[in-house]
Amino acid sequence: MAQEIYYEDINVGDAMPELVKGPIQKLQHVMYAGASGDFNPLHTDDDFAKAIGMDGVIAHGMLIMGFVGQAITSWIPRKYLKKFGVRFAGMTKPNNTITVTGKVTDRRVEAGENLITCEVVAQDENGDVKITGHFEAALPSRG
Amino acid sequence: MAQEIYYEDINVGDAMPELVKGPIQKLQHVMYAGASGDFNPLHTDDDFAKAIGMDGVIAHGMLIMGFVGQAITSWIPRKYLKKFGVRFAGMTKPNNTITVTGKVTDRRVEAGENLITCEVVAQDENGDVKITGHFEAALPSRG
Repeated sequence: MAQEIYYEDINVGDAMPELVKGPIQKLQHVMYAGASGDFNPLHTDDDFAKAIGMDGVIAHGMLIMGFVGQAITSWIPRKYLKKFGVRFAGMTKPNNTITVTGKVTDRRVEAGENLITCEVVAQDENGDVKITGHFEAALPSRG
Repeated sequence: MAQEIYYEDINVGDAMPELVKGPIQKLQHVMYAGASGDFNPLHTDDDFAKAIGMDGVIAHGMLIMGFVGQAITSWIPRKYLKKFGVRFAGMTKPNNTITVTGKVTDRRVEAGENLITCEVVAQDENGDVKITGHFEAALPSRG
């Protein structure tokens, strides 16, 4: 859970605390399906996945995006988060371990808000990129 | 689950099939916590939420973003989805029912890809906006 954080304490180039998730088991796809209500069998039925030309089930992209979100909100309280965007770069397979890293790329005062922009990336244990993204947050000032 | 979809069948102004989720129960926050591993008590412990100045627990923002993603991938197969970005506009409270809608705002051929851009919005039963966003997909051609 995120501690309080202030604009003055953030510098361009600062690293976001790393978050490691996994190895992701097929059972987590099932849990995510139940939690989200997204029951596309591509995520839970290997036979179905193979029938549509995949090697087997893949994780919900939104689960991986959720990991990136969790990495962000473990550092920046949710209420300060304004924007979050991703590019889907690869599929996540069972037993992948996902590591989310990020760094601050910009900080600026704009329309009275103390804004930071960060780049984030989610990679598996082989360095294969699953998601790249960025987020913007408006932070409180110590002043 | 998304059916096959072709670039030629999509026009600017087309509506994305609507997705309705809810009413969201506190138990779904618990399920999402277990599925995602995001155990911030803000989502599951009313006492904790009140202690930090909230009225009570709120849903994980990533759960709501996941609903938007589910609305998208129920229409556009996941493998065609390239980018997805959101702006967090409001908190989701227990018993909110979330409706995701969207429409096509642009279509273009770019670097050999058949791209569509859509705007999406997630609102509760009172019309309060929780998330606005956009996505980009590269679609196959019938040609």
